[in-house]
Amino acid sequence: MAPTIDLVADIGESFGAWTMGDDDALLEVLTSANIACGFHAGDPRTMDRTVRQCVARGIGIGAHPSFPDLVGFGRRAMDLSAEEVRTDVLYQLGALHAFAVAHGTTLSHLAPHGRLGNLVATRPDYAAAVVAAVRAFDQDLIVLAQDGELADHAREQGLRVGIVGIVDRAYRADGTLVPRSEPGAVIHDTAVLVRRAVRVVTEGFIDTVEGTEIPIEADTLLLHGDNADAVRHAQAIRAALTEAGVEIAPLHRVLAARDGRGSTSCRA
Amino acid sequence: MAPTIDLVADIGESFGAWTMGDDDALLEVLTSANIACGFHAGDPRTMDRTVRQCVARGIGIGAHPSFPDLVGFGRRAMDLSAEEVRTDVLYQLGALHAFAVAHGTTLSHLAPHGRLGNLVATRPDYAAAVVAAVRAFDQDLIVLAQDGELADHAREQGLRVGIVGIVDRAYRADGTLVPRSEPGAVIHDTAVLVRRAVRVVTEGFIDTVEGTEIPIEADTLLLHGDNADAVRHAQAIRAALTEAGVEIAPLHRVLAARDGRGSTSCRA
Amino acid sequence: MAPTIDLVADIGESFGAWTMGDDDALLEVLTSANIACGFHAGDPRTMDRTVRQCVARGIGIGAHPSFPDLVGFGRRAMDLSAEEVRTDVLYQLGALHAFAVAHGTTLSHLAPHGRLGNLVATRPDYAAAVVAAVRAFDQDLIVLAQDGELADHAREQGLRVGIVGIVDRAYRADGTLVPRSEPGAVIHDTAVLVRRAVRVVTEGFIDTVEGTEIPIEADTLLLHGDNADAVRHAQAIRAALTEAGVEIAPLHRVLAARDGRGSTSCRA
Amino acid sequence: MAPTIDLVADIGESFGAWTMGDDDALLEVLTSANIACGFHAGDPRTMDRTVRQCVARGIGIGAHPSFPDLVGFGRRAMDLSAEEVRTDVLYQLGALHAFAVAHGTTLSHLAPHGRLGNLVATRPDYAAAVVAAVRAFDQDLIVLAQDGELADHAREQGLRVGIVGIVDRAYRADGTLVPRSEPGAVIHDTAVLVRRAVRVVTEGFIDTVEGTEIPIEADTLLLHGDNADAVRHAQAIRAALTEAGVEIAPLHRVLAARDGRGSTSCRA
Repeated sequence: MAPTIDLVADIGESFGAWTMGDDDALLEVLTSANIACGFHAGDPRTMDRTVRQCVARGIGIGAHPSFPDLVGFGRRAMDLSAEEVRTDVLYQLGALHAFAVAHGTTLSHLAPHGRLGNLVATRPDYAAAVVAAVRAFDQDLIVLAQDGELADHAREQGLRVGIVGIVDRAYRADGTLVPRSEPGAVIHDTAVLVRRAVRVVTEGFIDTVEGTEIPIEADTLLLHGDNADAVRHAQAIRAALTEAGVEIAPLHRVLAARDGRGSTSCRA
Repeated sequence: MAPTIDLVADIGESFGAWTMGDDDALLEVLTSANIACGFHAGDPRTMDRTVRQCVARGIGIGAHPSFPDLVGFGRRAMDLSAEEVRTDVLYQLGALHAFAVAHGTTLSHLAPHGRLGNLVATRPDYAAAVVAAVRAFDQDLIVLAQDGELADHAREQGLRVGIVGIVDRAYRADGTLVPRSEPGAVIHDTAVLVRRAVRVVTEGFIDTVEGTEIPIEADTLLLHGDNADAVRHAQAIRAALTEAGVEIAPLHRVLAARDGRGSTSCRA
Repeated sequence: MAPTIDLVADIGESFGAWTMGDDDALLEVLTSANIACGFHAGDPRTMDRTVRQCVARGIGIGAHPSFPDLVGFGRRAMDLSAEEVRTDVLYQLGALHAFAVAHGTTLSHLAPHGRLGNLVATRPDYAAAVVAAVRAFDQDLIVLAQDGELADHAREQGLRVGIVGIVDRAYRADGTLVPRSEPGAVIHDTAVLVRRAVRVVTEGFIDTVEGTEIPIEADTLLLHGDNADAVRHAQAIRAALTEAGVEIAPLHRVLAARDGRGSTSCRA
Repeated sequence: MAPTIDLVADIGESFGAWTMGDDDALLEVLTSANIACGFHAGDPRTMDRTVRQCVARGIGIGAHPSFPDLVGFGRRAMDLSAEEVRTDVLYQLGALHAFAVAHGTTLSHLAPHGRLGNLVATRPDYAAAVVAAVRAFDQDLIVLAQDGELADHAREQGLRVGIVGIVDRAYRADGTLVPRSEPGAVIHDTAVLVRRAVRVVTEGFIDTVEGTEIPIEADTLLLHGDNADAVRHAQAIRAALTEAGVEIAPLHRVLAARDGRGSTSCRA
């Protein structure tokens, strides 16, 4: 059976008169989308248009909830209570859901944005709050996460989890990412990116900065559209995966295929 | 068959550290609630708590969408496009829906807030935009309105409409309200309020400032909780209605009873 | 004496992670800048950077206050009270003033933004509110406006007024602009724009869509930086004015020169 | 010479339609006011009215800048860069300054609000950012703080510092406050509060929870107006101080008197 992978990116991050990223180009590449819900980006018109475009292309629609910080684009840590995280996520899930319903579909997944997305990997209270919001709203939603507290907690609570692979960031031998502040943290070479992407999907391994390689499991690869280079990388990765015989499919089909193969990351 | 009426008020209009109105007292009186959705009032914690309290008492949960104007409490006219109204209403409907779902229920109705609520009675483009949002999201939602463009348009589009009676405002012989800027526009006398409420519900008539009386149809009476007097009036009206043999019931039961009687305001 | 003109544009309209316009290119062309103050655009970092760049180039710093409508970029009419307009403008004036002081200078002028900028030309209450804010804060601020209520009221109250000429919009014989909704409202041809700019400044006349020409007085020309074409036009206009022997100078020097000539638009 | 003390409270914390605290009652008690600047509370109308009321009573006007967190009332930690703190404080200083100027006065002081107010006592980067904003805007502003990084840094940079005494919070022998989460952290007994206030001002000592007493220096006492009890306490403290022969005076006069006495907390 051919390996399958989902391709996802954060889109719909314009706001009012301001545009962010080249969503039109990305939409030709993606099978899933993390769509901003108004707290860090994404006014109701942007949400409506983005959902419509995703539906037209069969792209899976995911909520991309954030800390309430428009001016900081959700990139700044905020010390919220778990109850504040839970209710902020519920609010944003519902808001995006309305546009999904209006366009004849439903949400496929959720992926916390920015600093909230970082913190749910390490803060059990935030992870539990996000899981509580998802369970209360729709138990069929897939939780998109890297390995960490959110992924663990979501599985324990019976939710499906999609693990995100990040091929443009350097890995260490212990499986963590090299921090952005260090040299070589971000990989810009297209050929290297493409090779890493194909290897992760077809073999399940990725090179580390120490020169070793480590096993890595990914249900989806995180792509970007912030600039022209990012879009070109996204396009190149998709082309190379297709050429390597990989099936590129929305998240729920990837998870179904994986579960059929008995992956270790399936829920108990 | 006993006459039936719904009792509704705008609640959940606190925001963060700020409190508005005596929701706890009102919740003992209401059968339906218009709940703020974040654009004029109502942060996610307030929405969550308010929905939970309504569910615990069997109070029908309605969305109370507004212009995006927190500092103006949604009371200032904004010249939005119809598309902006439609998407702003969808966003708010979805956000409140998430809390309804989290508490095991669904939305019963929608009632535009403040200045948006005034304008949908006279602006066909805004009325159509609200109706489009409701139809796209949930065709079973009841549209709460006074007579006007929104009520007409909602009925034409096959939505159920609940007509709001306002017994604390003086009526003119032509059926319009005396503007707030004129003397006598607002009725403060408890005995008069109670008499008007009972008469509207049991006989379908209301006195006018000209000394005549006019027929009036109402599926729900709009009560208030802004201050201690308003709460006392709400309590007195409920008590008097009960004593007069009126059945006080959530909106959907009032509409079902009315439709059973072949009211003229039922949809075609 | 050589004719003098100021060149102004709206800048500093980025917000947080979002960029708007090519400010760097415009800063090479301008002698005055209308800087967003946070209500429609312009977070504190953007304000700080923009003021710093203006100070470094000797560009006059003007406040560009707006209706409080970030998602609508201040382009949507809001029905505020005069008191709300006055206090909103005061707030924004003060906020920008702080950055001017921090960079060792003061504000030179004020120019209402977007829809507020349109409405102050026709609504006496809004015009009076803006003038009241300016007079209460700094009577030396120059009010930038087209002919209309704001310009008239500011002069009556003893404020200096700079009249804005808009050479990329078609004029009618009665001196009003052709509405954007009509064909030919906006002039895109560089050669035509340049010719109009030079003629306005050196001769005081502009062509109308009716084929006539009308006298026009301008203390500053409004340029744009929204896109590459707009920037090219701005550069071409500046080059042509210089070549035509026009002195390009900040607003206060233009007004001083004009007053020295006994212009009809000087204050009594 | 009679001991002198300033009495200060956070006021102007209403927002739009929402009211917070009993400012009218507090205004009869205070000699200085920390006024919200829009980021956690305080819309432009509230700011205008509050400044006007303070000017009418000779109350010193202080800026009360906050993290940008309206829904959290500035009580939640945010991980801003120092540059973000500096520019956010500058923005708020300027905004309040405009209302001071409009009412014929200037700002007397600055006191960071809520969580920012806590963090500047321990984070040198935040303390330095606040000091940089004050120095860039107005070197005559008094910095109100408890002992800590902000007070130290402000003095080092040549700013005047007013030390805030908090008599309704229990102190430990090491001079720190008992955390709110612990029993006895907040003192509610009027007689105890009054006694502590008088003792701090006239003798410079305060009791600790360990049963000892420690020296404490205060240029101002922080009062509250959140509820009826708080207002009564404030009134009782003022009355008791007056009866004890204490001169109650605005901050700048307290500092002048203190500096005349050669206090250790005067600037080098």
